[in-house]
Parts: sequence; C-alpha cells; structure tokens
Amino acid sequence: MASEFELIARYLTPAAPGPGAGVPLGVGDDCALLAPRPGQQLAVSVDTSVSDIHFPVDAPAEAIGHRALAVSLSDLAAMGAESRWCLMALSLARNDDAWLAAFAHGFHALCATTGTVLAGGDVSRGELAVSVTVMGEVSPEAALTRGGGQAGDILAVTGALGGGAGGLALWQRGERDLAHPLLQRYLKPMPRLAAGLALRGLAHAAIDISDGLLADLDHLLTASGVGARLESDALPLAEGLSDELGEHEARQAALCGGDDYELLVSVPPAAWAEAQRRLAAQHLALTPIGTLHEGSGVSGVSVAGKQGWQHFRGTAS
Amino acid sequence: MASEFELIARYLTPAAPGPGAGVPLGVGDDCALLAPRPGQQLAVSVDTSVSDIHFPVDAPAEAIGHRALAVSLSDLAAMGAESRWCLMALSLARNDDAWLAAFAHGFHALCATTGTVLAGGDVSRGELAVSVTVMGEVSPEAALTRGGGQAGDILAVTGALGGGAGGLALWQRGERDLAHPLLQRYLKPMPRLAAGLALRGLAHAAIDISDGLLADLDHLLTASGVGARLESDALPLAEGLSDELGEHEARQAALCGGDDYELLVSVPPAAWAEAQRRLAAQHLALTPIGTLHEGSGVSGVSVAGKQGWQHFRGTAS
Repeated sequence: MASEFELIARYLTPAAPGPGAGVPLGVGDDCALLAPRPGQQLAVSVDTSVSDIHFPVDAPAEAIGHRALAVSLSDLAAMGAESRWCLMALSLARNDDAWLAAFAHGFHALCATTGTVLAGGDVSRGELAVSVTVMGEVSPEAALTRGGGQAGDILAVTGALGGGAGGLALWQRGERDLAHPLLQRYLKPMPRLAAGLALRGLAHAAIDISDGLLADLDHLLTASGVGARLESDALPLAEGLSDELGEHEARQAALCGGDDYELLVSVPPAAWAEAQRRLAAQHLALTPIGTLHEGSGVSGVSVAGKQGWQHFRGTAS
Repeated sequence: MASEFELIARYLTPAAPGPGAGVPLGVGDDCALLAPRPGQQLAVSVDTSVSDIHFPVDAPAEAIGHRALAVSLSDLAAMGAESRWCLMALSLARNDDAWLAAFAHGFHALCATTGTVLAGGDVSRGELAVSVTVMGEVSPEAALTRGGGQAGDILAVTGALGGGAGGLALWQRGERDLAHPLLQRYLKPMPRLAAGLALRGLAHAAIDISDGLLADLDHLLTASGVGARLESDALPLAEGLSDELGEHEARQAALCGGDDYELLVSVPPAAWAEAQRRLAAQHLALTPIGTLHEGSGVSGVSVAGKQGWQHFRGTAS
C-alpha cells in the first residue's frame, strides 16, 4: 500500500509552479514559502467539507475535489480578493488509487481555472474530509466586507439561487446525471472570483451565499447596521428549480437553502449601471432583489423558518 | 444546542488583536485580512490531528488544543520562520461546552506564548479532528530548508529524543499523570520556534522530527544530496525514557519514534560554537549526533526497521 509520502507525491503535488506564481519554495519542505506582492493584504479563509454532511460520500470523486476548493475560493470572491495559493488537508478512510486520481483531477482543474497554486498539504487517515485553506491578495482600500452596506444601496445577487438545495434534493431522489444543471450547481459550484474583482470600487458590501440567502443577508445587515426590504418575487431562481421542486419549494430553496456560492452585494444607485455592465461582460446576471434602509431587520418575505445552513442543528443534510 | 456561529463566537474567537498583530480584519467576515511585512516571505503549512490516530481521544481537551497547534508551529520552527497567524478547522462529533472551553484554552494559551494570532476558523460536525494552518514570516535569505546540508556539517538535534514514543507507550499503559515528563513530551510538545530563529544564518539545513529521527534524517539527506554517519550513542534521550522502556527500547524510540518535534539541523563546524551558545541562552541543549559526508545513506546505526511514523501503514498508533 502506498505510503503517505507516495500519495502526496503522486496525486497532490502540482506541477512546479512558474516564476509568476509567487512560490519560491513549493511542496516538499516543512513549509512552503510564498512571496506576497508589496502593498497587498492577504485574504485568508479555511473551510472543511465532511463526507455525508457537506457532500454525499458517493458523489463523484472529481466533484468532491472541485467542490472542496470551490467553497473556500467563494470566500475570497466575497472579499474581492485575487486567488493566489491554497493548502489542502485531506483525511481518507481508505487508500483508493482511482478515487484519489479523480479527486486530485477535480481539485487541480479548478486550481488551474482560477490561477490558484496548491502550495502544500497533509494527508491523514480518518473519515473522508477535506479542509482547504485559501490565500488571496487584495489592496487595503479595495477589499469588500460585510460591514460597508448603506441605507439606499441596491441589494443584488449574482447568478441564480436555490441550485444548491435543489441539487441536493435531486441527488437524494436518485438523480445521477451530472449534466443536470441543478446537480452541476450543487456538486460543481463556480466561485464568483471574477465578479468579486469586478465589483471592487463599486459595491459597498459583499458576502457569499453559503448558508442561505436570508442567513447571509442577516450577517450583512448586522455587520452594516442597516435593515433591508426584499422583493421576493425578484429572486432569480436556478434553472430547472421550479420544475423540480414546484414554485413554493423553489422559492423557499432560494431564500433558505445553502450551498449557492453566489455573491450577495449592496451597490449604491450611482454605481449600479456600471456594476451590471461589468458582470454582463462576464455573462453573469446581477439581479436587484431589494434595498437597504436605516434600522434593522428584513421585510418583504414570508418564510416558514429563516434559519440558514448550520451544522449541529441537524439541518445540514 | 449552540449553533456553529455561537460556538465560534464563544470559544474560537480570540480577543481583538492589537495594532502590532498585522490583522486589519479578524474573525467575522468571509476572510480575515492580514498585513504581511514588506520584504518578508510567507512560510505556510497545514497539519491535521485526528483523534485516536494522532492523539488519544480521551486525552485532556486542553492538551489536544495545545498539541494541534504545536505540531503545525513546529514546521515554522524548522524553516526559521517567525510565527504570525493561524487558522483552525475543527470537526466535532458532539457539542460539549466544557470540553470545548478546555480545548480552546489550550489552543489560545499556546497562541499567546508564541505570538500567533488566530485569524479565522471553521467548525463542522464529524469525528474529532483539528486542522491547523500556520503562517509565519522569514526573510528570503534567512529561511532554513532541508536542502542546504553540506559534507562536513555537524548533525545535531535540539532538546531530547524519544519522548513522543515514550509518552505514548506510557499513556497506553494507563499512566494519566500529566506532570510525568514523558506525557508532557507526548501531549504538550513545545515547538522550537525560538531555536529556529536563533539558528538562522548558522545552520545549513533544518527539519523537524515529527516522523522519527531516521525518517526525517532521510528527508534531509535526500534533499541535500549527502550521506550521514550517526553516533548513535550520542543521541540525547528524553528524561525518564530509559527507566520506562529499558535501554534498548529507549534507543529505538529515539531513532524511530514519531512526535518528538525537536529540530534536526546541520551546522558547519565554524558556526558550531555560536549555535550552541545561542541555544544555551534559551536553556536548550544542542547535541551533536553525527556528521554529513559526500555520498548517500546513513551509517552508524543498527535498527530493526528504519520506517518512520506514517499513516496508512498501521504504524501510527
């Protein structure tokens, strides 16, 4: 059976990074050495994906690799940061060459798409889980935070909502055709890094929708010290969502479902046209769904429960 | 039951970092924002500690928190890097307030001792496991690597060896007095950060002894392209090790046991006296255990098996 060192060497070591990668010393020593660019701040985040909590254990390995990186990169997108490097901590219950090869393929492919260099990692024995630390760069004045929203701002979301919850529902019903748009949304979300970069200097506040629209909106409002009025009819629903779940459930999924990995942003009216123009150039919708106002709380929606996706509450799967 | 957000807020959020911490934005947004110092490279590493593989599940929670951070910081020590920041990804099987409080105490206490700021984290449900990403700084010319060893260098280790394996053996025999020096070595190792800093500019090569002396020596020799002659009688044994294991087993533990978290360094003869003087000022032994020579391989030791501590081989616990 292959040793830890052999596993790392075979599947988790990327090709030697080029001179522009900012990796003077890559995988293979006690630490990797990275060269941050002068004048930039480092945006860092870590997310763990645990089998049968964050993804089905029998999901395709390639999707698990993609998804574990995507959910972390989504946090960089929400800060308006440029993705630079990542570290992976992988726990494996068993040592399956074909599974690992597919997992690594999904991970490395998204690294390549997003310009992210895998700089190090750790492999251990345990139930299947992947922790990915991402490191990006953003200039101090350009970073998007949750706390910048102002009364009068237009509240908007990128892309479409409810696909995460819809895809999970479909998977649980036995759908296995990964070409289905909802399964794509659930198993292979695309972090909105380019949108985050494009909204620098325009958006007042941003957060990614990983816990569900209402839960993440609540975080943005609390950090910004404002309230919001939602136009719930305006929510952009993921392709096929109403057909699969029915109109009512689809709307609930868009409001409360987790794992959408879209950006929720607040944009001042004066910057709105430019923000839409920039995202349209990326073939990405930016849909207004409400406005921010003085005060607190959310009006304009009626839902059974506002709770987002949280672990330890049993709502996670 | 407390939610993920409440757990994070209660136990894992440190006190607001001061102005010198280099954390313009700490826990509470999608990412933390860090301010690297100009001219420094970033040394980064991640290590996962899984219950009943890397530590006994019934070890004191405070020691588990300390240890999970210590093993990652040991990698910074081996690069001669100054510890700055860390991220914690914690998986918990159940939500136990007292356990979490003790775990957090052990983690935060070592953060404080080592000047490391917890900048973010993630809590999920799963078997007990802790992944800690550490980030340190080192100037490009000062970094210690595995690959700089040269023929003629003196091979040396900090502190004492075999305590990790000895402590584990003691724990397995039922010893629970944490004041026992071997249990201290196993459950509460102290990363040799100050030694790593002191050896900058003196040592040609360094690695931490996490997989066992012979396994890590092999990594250093391979990276440096040299061989070594060991004086196995010179190995500094951890306090109490021979009494507990007997002379032969104690020597085997020093050669092949894992989890010692001492530094193995190669120092040119001209720098030797200064290196010993600097570590003596830290009340830390630096013991010569052999020399590097042209060629490859290790002579001077006779062991049953040279394999170090690897997962997936069943030698881990």
